[in-house]
Amino acid sequence: MNTYGRIFRVGIFGESHGPCAGVVIDGVIPGIEINRSVFEEDLKRRRPGISGTTSRAEQDIPEIVSGVCNGVATGAPVTVLFRNTDMRPEDYEKFKEVPRPGHSDFAASVKYNHYNDMRGSGPFSGRLTVGLVAAGAIAKKMIGGISINAYVKELGGLRDESEWPSAIEKARREGDSLGAIVECRCSGVKPGLGEPFFDSVESCISHIVFSIPGVRGIEFGDGFSASAMRGSEHNDPFCGSDGKTSKNGSGGINGGISNGNEILFRVAFKPASSISKMQRTYDFVREEMTALGISGRHDTCFALRAPVIVESVAAIALADLMLVAE
Amino acid sequence: MNTYGRIFRVGIFGESHGPCAGVVIDGVIPGIEINRSVFEEDLKRRRPGISGTTSRAEQDIPEIVSGVCNGVATGAPVTVLFRNTDMRPEDYEKFKEVPRPGHSDFAASVKYNHYNDMRGSGPFSGRLTVGLVAAGAIAKKMIGGISINAYVKELGGLRDESEWPSAIEKARREGDSLGAIVECRCSGVKPGLGEPFFDSVESCISHIVFSIPGVRGIEFGDGFSASAMRGSEHNDPFCGSDGKTSKNGSGGINGGISNGNEILFRVAFKPASSISKMQRTYDFVREEMTALGISGRHDTCFALRAPVIVESVAAIALADLMLVAE
Amino acid sequence: MNTYGRIFRVGIFGESHGPCAGVVIDGVIPGIEINRSVFEEDLKRRRPGISGTTSRAEQDIPEIVSGVCNGVATGAPVTVLFRNTDMRPEDYEKFKEVPRPGHSDFAASVKYNHYNDMRGSGPFSGRLTVGLVAAGAIAKKMIGGISINAYVKELGGLRDESEWPSAIEKARREGDSLGAIVECRCSGVKPGLGEPFFDSVESCISHIVFSIPGVRGIEFGDGFSASAMRGSEHNDPFCGSDGKTSKNGSGGINGGISNGNEILFRVAFKPASSISKMQRTYDFVREEMTALGISGRHDTCFALRAPVIVESVAAIALADLMLVAE
Amino acid sequence: MNTYGRIFRVGIFGESHGPCAGVVIDGVIPGIEINRSVFEEDLKRRRPGISGTTSRAEQDIPEIVSGVCNGVATGAPVTVLFRNTDMRPEDYEKFKEVPRPGHSDFAASVKYNHYNDMRGSGPFSGRLTVGLVAAGAIAKKMIGGISINAYVKELGGLRDESEWPSAIEKARREGDSLGAIVECRCSGVKPGLGEPFFDSVESCISHIVFSIPGVRGIEFGDGFSASAMRGSEHNDPFCGSDGKTSKNGSGGINGGISNGNEILFRVAFKPASSISKMQRTYDFVREEMTALGISGRHDTCFALRAPVIVESVAAIALADLMLVAE
Repeated sequence: MNTYGRIFRVGIFGESHGPCAGVVIDGVIPGIEINRSVFEEDLKRRRPGISGTTSRAEQDIPEIVSGVCNGVATGAPVTVLFRNTDMRPEDYEKFKEVPRPGHSDFAASVKYNHYNDMRGSGPFSGRLTVGLVAAGAIAKKMIGGISINAYVKELGGLRDESEWPSAIEKARREGDSLGAIVECRCSGVKPGLGEPFFDSVESCISHIVFSIPGVRGIEFGDGFSASAMRGSEHNDPFCGSDGKTSKNGSGGINGGISNGNEILFRVAFKPASSISKMQRTYDFVREEMTALGISGRHDTCFALRAPVIVESVAAIALADLMLVAE
Repeated sequence: MNTYGRIFRVGIFGESHGPCAGVVIDGVIPGIEINRSVFEEDLKRRRPGISGTTSRAEQDIPEIVSGVCNGVATGAPVTVLFRNTDMRPEDYEKFKEVPRPGHSDFAASVKYNHYNDMRGSGPFSGRLTVGLVAAGAIAKKMIGGISINAYVKELGGLRDESEWPSAIEKARREGDSLGAIVECRCSGVKPGLGEPFFDSVESCISHIVFSIPGVRGIEFGDGFSASAMRGSEHNDPFCGSDGKTSKNGSGGINGGISNGNEILFRVAFKPASSISKMQRTYDFVREEMTALGISGRHDTCFALRAPVIVESVAAIALADLMLVAE
Repeated sequence: MNTYGRIFRVGIFGESHGPCAGVVIDGVIPGIEINRSVFEEDLKRRRPGISGTTSRAEQDIPEIVSGVCNGVATGAPVTVLFRNTDMRPEDYEKFKEVPRPGHSDFAASVKYNHYNDMRGSGPFSGRLTVGLVAAGAIAKKMIGGISINAYVKELGGLRDESEWPSAIEKARREGDSLGAIVECRCSGVKPGLGEPFFDSVESCISHIVFSIPGVRGIEFGDGFSASAMRGSEHNDPFCGSDGKTSKNGSGGINGGISNGNEILFRVAFKPASSISKMQRTYDFVREEMTALGISGRHDTCFALRAPVIVESVAAIALADLMLVAE
Repeated sequence: MNTYGRIFRVGIFGESHGPCAGVVIDGVIPGIEINRSVFEEDLKRRRPGISGTTSRAEQDIPEIVSGVCNGVATGAPVTVLFRNTDMRPEDYEKFKEVPRPGHSDFAASVKYNHYNDMRGSGPFSGRLTVGLVAAGAIAKKMIGGISINAYVKELGGLRDESEWPSAIEKARREGDSLGAIVECRCSGVKPGLGEPFFDSVESCISHIVFSIPGVRGIEFGDGFSASAMRGSEHNDPFCGSDGKTSKNGSGGINGGISNGNEILFRVAFKPASSISKMQRTYDFVREEMTALGISGRHDTCFALRAPVIVESVAAIALADLMLVAE
């Protein structure tokens, strides 16, 4: 359940305020260079610190404890640990009584018979995406000529990037949070990846994208707007012998199979659920409505840190699709 | 690859214009009544014939060839065949030279080294969804108290149902096609299904939804519109001890886990790629652009037949999630 | 559950006295020639008729209903059906009350809550191995240079082949049955297949070998006799740069990985459980011991038909290991 | 590949002379008490030190880094690390040139394109079974009423336990090693676990047993000796309404399904490949035969440490079978 992939397999473990977050990566091609600097750039992009993100200060130092010898992958499972250092587990006790709206507190409590780790949402925390980024960094090295690029396309409903800083600042001041849309482009993907049933490229990518906390939707190519188009408008004529199409409205995928064009998708992130602004919600102990304000260190717009995570999961999905196709 | 699910497992096989479409369903609870009439209503909803759909006339008679004895499931894999009767394979030869825009012709040809079955798109055809509907009918019987209801929410960009018939008629006359958005509601789902990584409820549903031909996007709860909301607006306060929330903007899922509210998602369908209207596209043999009009029997708006397919895959995903959770 | 393999995937369905036995084979390399004659020779070896086997007369005509177009594999799942024709379901009713010793009657009845198909042991029947043989015939075509050869090594405890006919005839006359040991050699397997944990070559082969009905044990290379050897005696020195060893006591596998030598294993088959000789066993309805003699058409030594089945599952396991390794 | 199980999933990682050996265990029932003492007894049984085993001195202190909060399982993946402390990696360099007979050196080198970790056999080492034992300790807690007991049945071909010490001492003095047969009994297993195809109880157990280094064979119930029996002799009459049989020659399994009797199997372990006695083998650099004596710290009879490992993998297999069946 906590594993993704068929040949390139990624397993996630850890908790937000436990000893560590970590990842086991199986199917790494032997001989690939793996050391701390491989992860550095991507980890930096994920790290909080930019305006609008949490003040939790984790160093995110990757500890490679298996699968690497003399700086290269041996072919055995690669395990990377990220020790947690800046933990404040005491912040979370009260959410057993008053589950936070939009959080997993209630659902997890039912699922795990109240034994779930509440500290910082435990295994549900965005903290665990550090493992996805580590696996993604290795995946990127494995998929060679493919270039993956994700970026915030829209923030708080605003497309004009120049308006974002003030929107974030305003939300922060009001103890509120903002959502965003992240767009991802994967170029250099060869045609022929994926299956008609059930492992279409869209299926494989959406499966892992929806494990990123806070995702509400995904669309490929023209996406939802295609539903309002006519066939003659949406159809994407081929324009050359390499399979290139003129508009790529299908996002690089036909019938679930990559067609050699850019794989293009967009991911909708909700605004962070943790806000200091007062909310009315239910107290499960006192059995009455109550007011809840969530203090602590939270992102005003965690989606600002999401592009590298989206890139990482895309790289993981493509690495697996490529190994399966070979 | 052509199998979905961990405990409730569904395998699809067959081709549009080969001998049959079929499905193998593993993990069926022994004792469930299975006979032709179990499939009848759902198959009827999928069948063409309503305005705006193809004139291909398949009887869709389910032939149950394994897993059932004396009218009840035995616990062994249930296999259901649907013989193809109204085939016209000769329609498709030319698409080897001039792949249809928006179709799998080109991508499949690369993937399968030109050995792919082109007849009616072979295994990529919407015809294969008949197997999904058969599996869904059994899944619905397995998930007891859950009620699943899908319907066209928007057609050709129009929300007002009264405008659809004329829009369809106009598109049909012009040899064009229309897309649609299908909304699906699953009520009665108990809290606690799904996993934080990687098998979130959204992951499991989106994975199988994206194997339905023609899907361009999926969103849960507030979906893409959540990305333009503030946390205080999107957050969904609990309002009772059963976990019911006031707005269900998360679509019944928190942290990947069902929270007991209605699971709500929307699926964007593109307009059908097969249109009789002339299109300019590439001739891979003559290596030049050419004009292509696709005759044959095609849906003006195949999404009209899609709700029951969306219901079916939702039922399959939920049946598997429930068996895993037990 | 009823599927084997990761990339080359085989799913079995059907019942002994239901409409058919069948198999779905996923991951077949496109372009491989597939027609009835591909299966013929292996099916013939599996068919009863030789002395010491059942008189049930099934034609075993393979009906290829998907995945093949113009006589070659398309890359889509290949489904093969074998219609049952010579059924006598009425033979089996009484075993609900008096489960046959050595048969699955009792265990299956508990597992499937008494809904299991008792007719000819339903899905537990040796009849279903016809699907394994069909999948094996395709697997053999996929694994090119590998040659697989299985044969009865020992029958009824006798190593001298010349003594078998009289032993079989004697057992048959006395209404009894005989076991056997089948040995299998796979030559031409390249080194490097398999995984240390958990998918060793032995793990993958033993997994599928133990789904053949009636198997009691499996050993590789020196097998159980290795446990009585010293290291200096069992160790297998390399004797050339291609990795060939002098004794192959490890059966072509070191550390779970193929080493380029012949993969050699032996499978122990029990004597058939169905015997006409009277047995004392429990009557679950009358709650007392009773006498049971099983009439019908049964093999005196079904292991005579087993070598081709052992070859088939070895081919399936190796095809999957090779596709994973590529 | 390095994962076993469908619902109770165990992933192994680490190397003999790298930083650690470890295990990730998914599907642990929330609320189960997990602390160091849970592992203590089983780890002690696996630890070297008894006569006939290696002098490598690892403390085997389990470091629980995920999935546990306040001493109980939370339902998230449980990760346990065992830091390596007593490493001598320099011992292994020469085996790149002269692969050790019976070891994975050569096969792994081909598989991993010479990037494999040679130090102490890297991920192929018996060291990694420490993770199996940790997972097994948790599995044992999950399978409640089932009691699993494994023991050395035969050592160096000797059934009489009183002869073992002198046999071991003799082999040790001569720089040689001994094999053994380990027998395992699982009582209290409820009937109905397993599948006819392909996940029979034997398939699931043999799959994981063959990932224990040094296993050459496995047999259930009467095992290989059944092949020399007659049906009337091997058949196992029921003798009571709970499904108990009189002889349990089928080892508690009929048709791949547990029948409620004791699950009984035997595992053949080869003698350790590492012996100090001189062997003639191939030098892959000089391309000639050479003499090889393996110094270092090795077990004369590692099978003495194997019973707890066999118990552990049996517990893992049964835990998964039970969760699937529920």
